[in-house]
Amino acid sequence: MAGAEWESLEQCLEKNLPLADLREVKRILYGKETRELHLPSGAFEAASKGDFELRGYGFEAAEEQQRRPRIVRVGLVQNRTPLPADTPVVKQVTALHRRIEAITEVAATCGVNIICFQEAWTMPFAFCTRERLPWTEFAESAEDGPTIRFCQELARKHDMVVVSPILERDAEHGDVLWNTAVVISNSGAILGKTRKNHIPRVGDFNESTYYMEGNLGHPVFQTQFGRIAVNICYGRHHPLNWLMYSVNGAEIIFNPSATVGALSESLWPIEARNAAIANHCFTCAINRVGEERFPNEFTSGDGKKAHRDFGYFYGSSYVAAPDGSRTPGLSRNQDGLLVTELDLNLCRQVNDIWGFKMTGRYEMYAQELAEAVKPNYSPNIVKE
Amino acid sequence: MAGAEWESLEQCLEKNLPLADLREVKRILYGKETRELHLPSGAFEAASKGDFELRGYGFEAAEEQQRRPRIVRVGLVQNRTPLPADTPVVKQVTALHRRIEAITEVAATCGVNIICFQEAWTMPFAFCTRERLPWTEFAESAEDGPTIRFCQELARKHDMVVVSPILERDAEHGDVLWNTAVVISNSGAILGKTRKNHIPRVGDFNESTYYMEGNLGHPVFQTQFGRIAVNICYGRHHPLNWLMYSVNGAEIIFNPSATVGALSESLWPIEARNAAIANHCFTCAINRVGEERFPNEFTSGDGKKAHRDFGYFYGSSYVAAPDGSRTPGLSRNQDGLLVTELDLNLCRQVNDIWGFKMTGRYEMYAQELAEAVKPNYSPNIVKE
Repeated sequence: MAGAEWESLEQCLEKNLPLADLREVKRILYGKETRELHLPSGAFEAASKGDFELRGYGFEAAEEQQRRPRIVRVGLVQNRTPLPADTPVVKQVTALHRRIEAITEVAATCGVNIICFQEAWTMPFAFCTRERLPWTEFAESAEDGPTIRFCQELARKHDMVVVSPILERDAEHGDVLWNTAVVISNSGAILGKTRKNHIPRVGDFNESTYYMEGNLGHPVFQTQFGRIAVNICYGRHHPLNWLMYSVNGAEIIFNPSATVGALSESLWPIEARNAAIANHCFTCAINRVGEERFPNEFTSGDGKKAHRDFGYFYGSSYVAAPDGSRTPGLSRNQDGLLVTELDLNLCRQVNDIWGFKMTGRYEMYAQELAEAVKPNYSPNIVKE
Repeated sequence: MAGAEWESLEQCLEKNLPLADLREVKRILYGKETRELHLPSGAFEAASKGDFELRGYGFEAAEEQQRRPRIVRVGLVQNRTPLPADTPVVKQVTALHRRIEAITEVAATCGVNIICFQEAWTMPFAFCTRERLPWTEFAESAEDGPTIRFCQELARKHDMVVVSPILERDAEHGDVLWNTAVVISNSGAILGKTRKNHIPRVGDFNESTYYMEGNLGHPVFQTQFGRIAVNICYGRHHPLNWLMYSVNGAEIIFNPSATVGALSESLWPIEARNAAIANHCFTCAINRVGEERFPNEFTSGDGKKAHRDFGYFYGSSYVAAPDGSRTPGLSRNQDGLLVTELDLNLCRQVNDIWGFKMTGRYEMYAQELAEAVKPNYSPNIVKE
């Protein structure tokens, strides 16, 4: 299985395929070709100096008579944890704040209106270890923790909506932890928070050791730039999770994640993109990058030897559009900022063309699901 | 947009990529490499003589102590309509019967246990025309029409379960038409039927001109070779449709389709595969091949000139597995038979690894959907 040495699917295809074939391959793999965005040269210089990748793409919608184009630029950030996991907690958090501050600065020069960071971005993804300390010390209040205050400053400074996925400590309700994303308005005010609705018990990710299924339902946040929602990580495997955000009106659904190659790399291009298609909305899939090594050994329930890292986070963050097209992915092996310009009018336009909501028969499914969860449910199986 | 001249994505990648890159590309695009199946040389000769493609692949599961491998071979058939659409109805149907008979013969020599034909396989996909005659004359009884009797003979002769998607005429209930799939046991008995649950009003496909949303729910058929269901065509865009078949216990869900390039080719590799992943089951996506030309002009609601065909059916039939891997597609431009060996034990194994049903929270979604369909529903939108 590939680690850092293999850069990306798109790079490989661009390099090797004859032009006419490349065009057909892209048509089938990505739908229509996504326009490259013209970004300021200063941004590319800053990215190069800061050692992260910068890419920009744009999706168009048809012109309408009654609505102006609703153009918004989203920024997706993928990154390594810059310091080793055994560095003191405050130092790690501070280093991540600095890293994100620098990338957000570049995002601002690229005109980004809404930025989203990766899942639990202020910490290494230590949930594989099953250890509590020091990892639970990365948890913060979603209302006034240092990371939220930091994000509020970013939001105000850059007039940017900030989606900040953190490990939340909820002191008001028995001091429990949650996997949470805080949405901060471009005014700097906290718009609200949303929690990871589906918690993995898969491979190394026994995350219910730390936090349980979210209890906030499927809120959608009305920002100045459009209606957004956050489907955190493992929720991307659950089509109903995407659906309910969409039913509540989300035009962009962010999917901040932390997932490794052996587990999910061939699923990654499929799931968020299918959600964009099925729900007539934009989806933004964000994964972290690189390997994280922990001080103590842990085991993985796979019969293999105890180890200190749990695989290669393959980056490859991308944006998918309601018409089934998508941007190329960021690289598999580098920090990166993906700037994508969306015309949100495309959501309703595709909705009017394909009509999956109109033809969705949700009433039937509400009834069938309500029956199916009953303990005495008898599946509809036809026998000879 | 490509028509017949471009064969397939997989052929192009195999031809152009260096071996090491090809391996990585396949890993990311298809998951693990799918084993090629050894099929009898006589079968390849018959296929070549009959001018159709024959391919075979196999998916493995891990060994278990308490269950033997549950090996089943499925056959997916994609084909052109052999005669022009203005040929007399009975001649067209007979030619299709002969074509399918020949392909099924080869499937039998390949050990196929369950075969599925394409959507409305006994006719050209004439629903774009909005004309009634002669197209409604292709409709038949799902209980004792000539096509069902033909399929019963095939089933008995070859000890094969036959999934036969037809245009159904329901004389018992007001003579209405349905888009139906009939499932015939390998004994030759009719196991039952299932109807297309979601009816497209998209592009040329104003199918509710002819038939309405299916009223048979989500039946699953217990065959000797495993539990199967049929999600007809446009139902593949609806994640809840796949889900309910899976909740009722389907291990293999067939998706007989008729869809053209301009509309859906970049969605095709995504949707059925996402359904296999999300539902821990095998999915079988089948599309027809080539162009169909109709005697009278029709228009398409796209501002373009009246025309007599509605695009290129791009074949590309494939099987996706619950672990996210998939077979290569059949070609875009040739009739074909895809033989795939499945170990159905893989479904429960992947279910036990990923646990999407265990973590699915269907009770919450049943409630949220029941609320969402109420006329006075107020979406969960958070404002500043």
